[in-house]
Amino acid sequence: MRIGLDIGGTKVLAVAIDGDPTKPIAVHRAPTVPDADHLSDTIESLVRGIEAELGETAHAVGVGIAGLVDRSGTLWFAPNIPGVTAYPVRDELSRRLDRPVAVENDATTATWAEAKVGAGEGSDHVVMVSLGTGIGAAYVLDGRLYRGWNGFAGESGHMVVDRNGPRHHTGERGPWELFASGTALGVLAREAAADGRASALVARAGSVDGIDASHIEAAVLDEDAQMLAILDEFAHEVGLGVANLVHILDPEVVVVGGGLVDLGDALIDPVRRWTAAHVLGGDLRPAVRIDAARLGSRAAAIGAAMLAGGG
Amino acid sequence: MRIGLDIGGTKVLAVAIDGDPTKPIAVHRAPTVPDADHLSDTIESLVRGIEAELGETAHAVGVGIAGLVDRSGTLWFAPNIPGVTAYPVRDELSRRLDRPVAVENDATTATWAEAKVGAGEGSDHVVMVSLGTGIGAAYVLDGRLYRGWNGFAGESGHMVVDRNGPRHHTGERGPWELFASGTALGVLAREAAADGRASALVARAGSVDGIDASHIEAAVLDEDAQMLAILDEFAHEVGLGVANLVHILDPEVVVVGGGLVDLGDALIDPVRRWTAAHVLGGDLRPAVRIDAARLGSRAAAIGAAMLAGGG
Repeated sequence: MRIGLDIGGTKVLAVAIDGDPTKPIAVHRAPTVPDADHLSDTIESLVRGIEAELGETAHAVGVGIAGLVDRSGTLWFAPNIPGVTAYPVRDELSRRLDRPVAVENDATTATWAEAKVGAGEGSDHVVMVSLGTGIGAAYVLDGRLYRGWNGFAGESGHMVVDRNGPRHHTGERGPWELFASGTALGVLAREAAADGRASALVARAGSVDGIDASHIEAAVLDEDAQMLAILDEFAHEVGLGVANLVHILDPEVVVVGGGLVDLGDALIDPVRRWTAAHVLGGDLRPAVRIDAARLGSRAAAIGAAMLAGGG
Repeated sequence: MRIGLDIGGTKVLAVAIDGDPTKPIAVHRAPTVPDADHLSDTIESLVRGIEAELGETAHAVGVGIAGLVDRSGTLWFAPNIPGVTAYPVRDELSRRLDRPVAVENDATTATWAEAKVGAGEGSDHVVMVSLGTGIGAAYVLDGRLYRGWNGFAGESGHMVVDRNGPRHHTGERGPWELFASGTALGVLAREAAADGRASALVARAGSVDGIDASHIEAAVLDEDAQMLAILDEFAHEVGLGVANLVHILDPEVVVVGGGLVDLGDALIDPVRRWTAAHVLGGDLRPAVRIDAARLGSRAAAIGAAMLAGGG
């Protein structure tokens, strides 16, 4: 039995796996406390809580964190846990739990799960892009998780796609996540609404500024034509960046993850079309497969458990 | 003794290595004949010529080709050898030579050589970008050559960096190689000259349209201020794309290759500066090392020889 944890900005999800990783045998949750010692306390008590429930000791523990994690398992910076910087998560947890602990970026652990037992199953060349507040990405290359020199590979959301474009909060002009993250879809929808191109959205939300993800999802499910036009424009931005990654990495499968995946084929179909439109030599190469993530919100925790004790 | 060949658009270079790969024990050349059977004839006769000179049989042969080569060693398309398509180079040469033959893209073989015995020596995470007619790229990741699912990884020159920018001959808007290839530097210099911002270049070349790589190199060596301003603008384009690759792949070393490397530190220094300006979190990560390729025009042939017989 192995335990995997996903440390998000507001909550920590812990799962125990044994046998089929897609069917955790225990799932616990706790709120995230944005402070280093309390973070370790939270993790330790979730691990011990699961062990008490199962009456069994986990032989290894894996942790995925939304932040910059280096190869030694030190968390350098987590945008949503500002109280924790340069914190040796792996060393501290290994000491407290006295067993092997693996610590990785959460996009990395989610990608490992999706590549091995999710949408990328069966392929040795998988790129996963998670469209959320920003864009997280990670890769399985030649069957192995690729971390990079420092462990910082996958910052694909910061790939500049519009060198003269608008500035991101990072100061960079035109990075991909400015156009293709979940946040960007909201901006696009509110811009369309302000231009009078999203009347159903405005009717649902009560105001242009009130439009959020729930209104977008409802309008997509309703097949509202104006909303689908906005989604197509958004899918073009996603596809353009995915095509860049296809040119650079030549994956067999691109897994699209993040909360937006709830939009289903209404999102994935136009992403497939726009990616194909931007990949060169499409007549000389087999088409890349683009699929929605299958493991949902538990992917990062499941992948962390799978990576615990050496993958 | 192993033999490596670099198949370019106009000539084929063959080297034999034994011991130190950077010191070939034989170097032969022949013109490229743009026809599949003649190409194999040329390769076979270069191999047999070297073997006759050395009085020794190569135990394996490697080939690097400027084109789309898949993992089975089939050349699908080579922009500068239009007469050769969908040609199983590896199978044909294995049959003729009756020994192991490795066939790869030339940027891939050059990268292997630079990563192992050139500018990337000692690092397991090397990205090489070759600035020539277009931009070729290849990667050594976790110490291994990365080829991609089909063998087509490294088409980084087609990464879009200006989604609303000018169209490339491929039809794509704003791919990196439109701004940062050797070709692009020539365009930039002629544009500056037409605007009256490159008087020394015009004086050397006799006309704006006459400006070519030789005039650019001479003006750089002269430290002509107008030329160095153009080169800085060009280095910014290079650095922007290199920073994208750093965000995506987190390499330790980026090797800059291609004919432009003759410009030396006048090019590499501003590329270092602009890359650093575009990489986020520079205070949280060790700086990527950016160096000029060290093996010169023989890198692709040397790397092909090194990859022959299993690397």
